[in-house]
Amino acid sequence: MNTQSKAAFYKGKKSFEIKHVDLTPPQENEVQIEVAYCGVCGTDLHVFHGNMDARIGNNRIIGHEMSGVIVSKGKNVNNVNIGDHVVVLPLVHCATCPACKAGHTHICHHLQFLGLDSHGAFQQHWNVPQHTIHILPKDLSLAHAALIEPVSVACHGVSRANLSAQEDVLVIGGGPIGMLTAIVAKSKGCNVVISEVSQARLDMAKKLGFLTVNPIQENIVKKIMQLTNNKGVDAVFEVSGTQAGVDVMTEVAACRGRIVMTAIHTQKPQIDLFKFFWRELELIGARVYTQEDYKNAIKIVASGDIDFKTIITDIGNLDQVQYYFEKLENNPTAMKTLIKCRHD
Amino acid sequence: MNTQSKAAFYKGKKSFEIKHVDLTPPQENEVQIEVAYCGVCGTDLHVFHGNMDARIGNNRIIGHEMSGVIVSKGKNVNNVNIGDHVVVLPLVHCATCPACKAGHTHICHHLQFLGLDSHGAFQQHWNVPQHTIHILPKDLSLAHAALIEPVSVACHGVSRANLSAQEDVLVIGGGPIGMLTAIVAKSKGCNVVISEVSQARLDMAKKLGFLTVNPIQENIVKKIMQLTNNKGVDAVFEVSGTQAGVDVMTEVAACRGRIVMTAIHTQKPQIDLFKFFWRELELIGARVYTQEDYKNAIKIVASGDIDFKTIITDIGNLDQVQYYFEKLENNPTAMKTLIKCRHD
Repeated sequence: MNTQSKAAFYKGKKSFEIKHVDLTPPQENEVQIEVAYCGVCGTDLHVFHGNMDARIGNNRIIGHEMSGVIVSKGKNVNNVNIGDHVVVLPLVHCATCPACKAGHTHICHHLQFLGLDSHGAFQQHWNVPQHTIHILPKDLSLAHAALIEPVSVACHGVSRANLSAQEDVLVIGGGPIGMLTAIVAKSKGCNVVISEVSQARLDMAKKLGFLTVNPIQENIVKKIMQLTNNKGVDAVFEVSGTQAGVDVMTEVAACRGRIVMTAIHTQKPQIDLFKFFWRELELIGARVYTQEDYKNAIKIVASGDIDFKTIITDIGNLDQVQYYFEKLENNPTAMKTLIKCRHD
Repeated sequence: MNTQSKAAFYKGKKSFEIKHVDLTPPQENEVQIEVAYCGVCGTDLHVFHGNMDARIGNNRIIGHEMSGVIVSKGKNVNNVNIGDHVVVLPLVHCATCPACKAGHTHICHHLQFLGLDSHGAFQQHWNVPQHTIHILPKDLSLAHAALIEPVSVACHGVSRANLSAQEDVLVIGGGPIGMLTAIVAKSKGCNVVISEVSQARLDMAKKLGFLTVNPIQENIVKKIMQLTNNKGVDAVFEVSGTQAGVDVMTEVAACRGRIVMTAIHTQKPQIDLFKFFWRELELIGARVYTQEDYKNAIKIVASGDIDFKTIITDIGNLDQVQYYFEKLENNPTAMKTLIKCRHD
């Protein structure tokens, strides 16, 4: 049996250090996962850029978009078995705050995010609380399964929008979360348009079968009104995090349209509140995911409906974390990069 | 039988002219109402200030917060009778636009507002389409009934917030609509706080039985968190139309809190979209009212739960319209002014 394991520590200043760490046995309510793959999230890039050092410190194993296999479990763990293929829903809630008491544990006032507030999955062996585990079908590719966490973000946004089949949808921003949101909305039977400014991403969106619009090259409001017979779209997903996105979202929404705020706006943009009044628009915040979203995401990833060849840009090894973060930094149009953590 | 009737015409430049007009018989689908009372709305003051001249022109009878008695009806009118006490829901929709087709006729793309887009109720006799009529109980005071239109605005906002009993509510802005919103929310069993900067209005809110806060004198966020055990309020009504109101609304809302936008923001304020994401807040536009809101408002006004002595500041005669608009202009803390239109 191994007594040591490899892990990538974020050390601050855009640097990772690969270290060997002693294997810690899982606590009584924990399982130990041999991590198969861990995707690089936009948040991980924020960490890499030093924007979250106050929260993260400079000796943290990050990573949370993972898949793996249970290799060990604590004595109180009885709902999973050694050998199970799993993903982790990386949230730990307090169970006592007003949000938890109201049943909204995923937005707990004291939410702990595994891979940010404690060690994450860019390592070979990861110990996590058993309640975070979702078991996968054995025939599901573990590389594809590493997409379940971001697909859950998309599922959560779509769930918050309460979409019906045949509704018209605009996704503003064609990065990984925007693209996955479009895919999940399409799986609900909606007519989805993606707005994006990068030609490489527009090409990718077209390849995935979406109508696209480049708001720099054409009048997006006019185009949406043409496409919807002057109704506007029933739902907008603001995934761009830009003032331009906020300007467009209120212009294109139909009367009673729902605008889902998935983007993280670090600045306070100006917003056309008059349109909210006039057309009775709704703005709906969407953060992370619930247990239900994870179950839905597992189904969608297992369905084979996602063109993973287009979505997964790169797969690297754990030893190459530094290289792949730098590569992503220099290629803002890349989609998903996976880090393979286990030996084959 | 009268062949002439008196009417107050808005002539532009903060002036009304009282004129005698020939009585026009109602068209086949119209009723003629002898107007009893018509309240002065904030929108009427906007018209008076010249802000809506492009829409209104300078020879328009305005006014829509009215009550009255049916005195004549067209040949196709069969659901109301001469002598019925009534109020008018002053909206005419097109029935063909996307909003109407989706069932949201009150926010029709081509909505016509009686008393703005066509003549209104600051006159003795008003002809309106029969579909706009709501019949009142005969024992309901016609002076109080003139409040049904603004109470319907409050009912609509409360309906959009989907309030439950025992929920904590903050109303930002203690003008007539804010105060009526607080009253309707309280009638649903909610714990309501009113935020207002004018001492006269704060005194009035206290007299009506509300907890109050003056955000200039105390830290409103701290106070709301104290009152709600650090949860925040379940619903906020933004009725102030100010940047300060927009700043407060996102700070005080609980996780999954609903923020109803009743105010008309003519500027685009800055908004903390991060809070929408982080706490999964919802912003919900609320404009005018539906048939259902009118029915609820009639019940509330008839229930006797509203302290009309406090809400109704003044009652003047039609001949004095000019005087009472000027009086309101110079007394921004006044609540509701009614104009009595019929002879006794």
